[in-house]
Amino acid sequence: MPHITAEQFNALMRAQIPLAAFLGITALEIGAGLAVLRLPFTPAALRPGGVQSGPALMALADLAMYAAVMGLYGNEPRVVSSDLSMNFLRRAPDQVLLGRSTVLGLDAKRALARTEIVPETGDGRLICLVTANFALP
Amino acid sequence: MPHITAEQFNALMRAQIPLAAFLGITALEIGAGLAVLRLPFTPAALRPGGVQSGPALMALADLAMYAAVMGLYGNEPRVVSSDLSMNFLRRAPDQVLLGRSTVLGLDAKRALARTEIVPETGDGRLICLVTANFALP
Amino acid sequence: MPHITAEQFNALMRAQIPLAAFLGITALEIGAGLAVLRLPFTPAALRPGGVQSGPALMALADLAMYAAVMGLYGNEPRVVSSDLSMNFLRRAPDQVLLGRSTVLGLDAKRALARTEIVPETGDGRLICLVTANFALP
Amino acid sequence: MPHITAEQFNALMRAQIPLAAFLGITALEIGAGLAVLRLPFTPAALRPGGVQSGPALMALADLAMYAAVMGLYGNEPRVVSSDLSMNFLRRAPDQVLLGRSTVLGLDAKRALARTEIVPETGDGRLICLVTANFALP
Repeated sequence: MPHITAEQFNALMRAQIPLAAFLGITALEIGAGLAVLRLPFTPAALRPGGVQSGPALMALADLAMYAAVMGLYGNEPRVVSSDLSMNFLRRAPDQVLLGRSTVLGLDAKRALARTEIVPETGDGRLICLVTANFALP
Repeated sequence: MPHITAEQFNALMRAQIPLAAFLGITALEIGAGLAVLRLPFTPAALRPGGVQSGPALMALADLAMYAAVMGLYGNEPRVVSSDLSMNFLRRAPDQVLLGRSTVLGLDAKRALARTEIVPETGDGRLICLVTANFALP
Repeated sequence: MPHITAEQFNALMRAQIPLAAFLGITALEIGAGLAVLRLPFTPAALRPGGVQSGPALMALADLAMYAAVMGLYGNEPRVVSSDLSMNFLRRAPDQVLLGRSTVLGLDAKRALARTEIVPETGDGRLICLVTANFALP
Repeated sequence: MPHITAEQFNALMRAQIPLAAFLGITALEIGAGLAVLRLPFTPAALRPGGVQSGPALMALADLAMYAAVMGLYGNEPRVVSSDLSMNFLRRAPDQVLLGRSTVLGLDAKRALARTEIVPETGDGRLICLVTANFALP
């Protein structure tokens, strides 16, 4: 059983992460080391060209990994990322996006996680790949 | 002379990048291949623990590089990052932050840029280091 | 059918990539967008502490992605990586290692690929995760 | 005064890092948090196309950061990188290369360092930029 549920994580975002509320990001599913979060297609996330901005995708990916790490490690909001890398593969105009994250490794001090950002519907082709390390308190 | 001024870039952010307005990010200075942007200390940027969130820092860094690349390459908002990596060195509670970006390399197809995030006042020690490639249209 | 076979790739490494020969890296399998390469446990790869060095792991990962990209795109040795990021999850003393690579995305100008480095035998837990973009000629 | 000298580091590479010897990498200068290492133009480093391979550049960069971190932190060869990212800006055929590294941040558990790879002679334009975190024992 994960250490934090999607409901608890959504409440945490509403209470303490204004950027998540601004973008409308919600958790659909959290397990022990995995999570699925959703970014609606919203004007708040756009950049010139009419596509979602890099920071909006980063918010989706970062929060998805944060949820997956807490699901495995414990309901401990002080978990923080220490480094992160993103690759943008293609644009996805007018799409609701999902961030699917997995914890790839965990030791006493850190967790490595990955998020794949894909459209909610359609071909499911990868839009953005993100990996990050999280320091554990 | 840069291809875009701080005034023009601030107008672009207000008109087309809602996330920048939400976070209160402003351009202080743009040159041909460099830019300084400012993130105020705002509740909008916070995460649990009372520090600025990773996506808020990423927004500051990404926009600073975007401005620096446009300053050198041309006022061409379709410039987009293709990959990005961030290292978080230390927390900086209660600080106004600056993102100082530099274009490190430019060829026909892409630009490599770096942003150093530092406190606006005080010791100036590095908080976050970001590098990214931008695809040029 | 892949555009390059394991035999052809091994011949290319022997003829033109001295570092691969020095480390004893060989291709076991190449498909259209995937490859498995092997790094023997060899003194040539070691660093202080008796574990394989970062550059030896990077060579394994980079060559595995190079093989996977050529398998999908064409037997075109001028393919080069443009950026790469590595995460080291744990040490693996005295282990023969495999680099399992997959092409995650491909367009006219670049390919994104990933390599997972795991022990050849045993628990199969991830040792190192590598992602890279390759510029296509 | 740095905790390790260029002479001591060269002896360490000769004794315990066969890949450094194979590539002919030598330390020219080590300070407390900085180092300059040299990669000769050698067939051992080449890849198809007649340029130095990614792993050879990674070896130069990784060893330069390793030296800079030890120069600042202590002569402690168990320092290891935990993640690393590289950006390749341009090719540099037929060039002797330098890796100039700097420690950007250091706390009790880790150090962040950067290496800029440039030609030894000529215009000094950046060839490759590398950043990495090192775990401190």
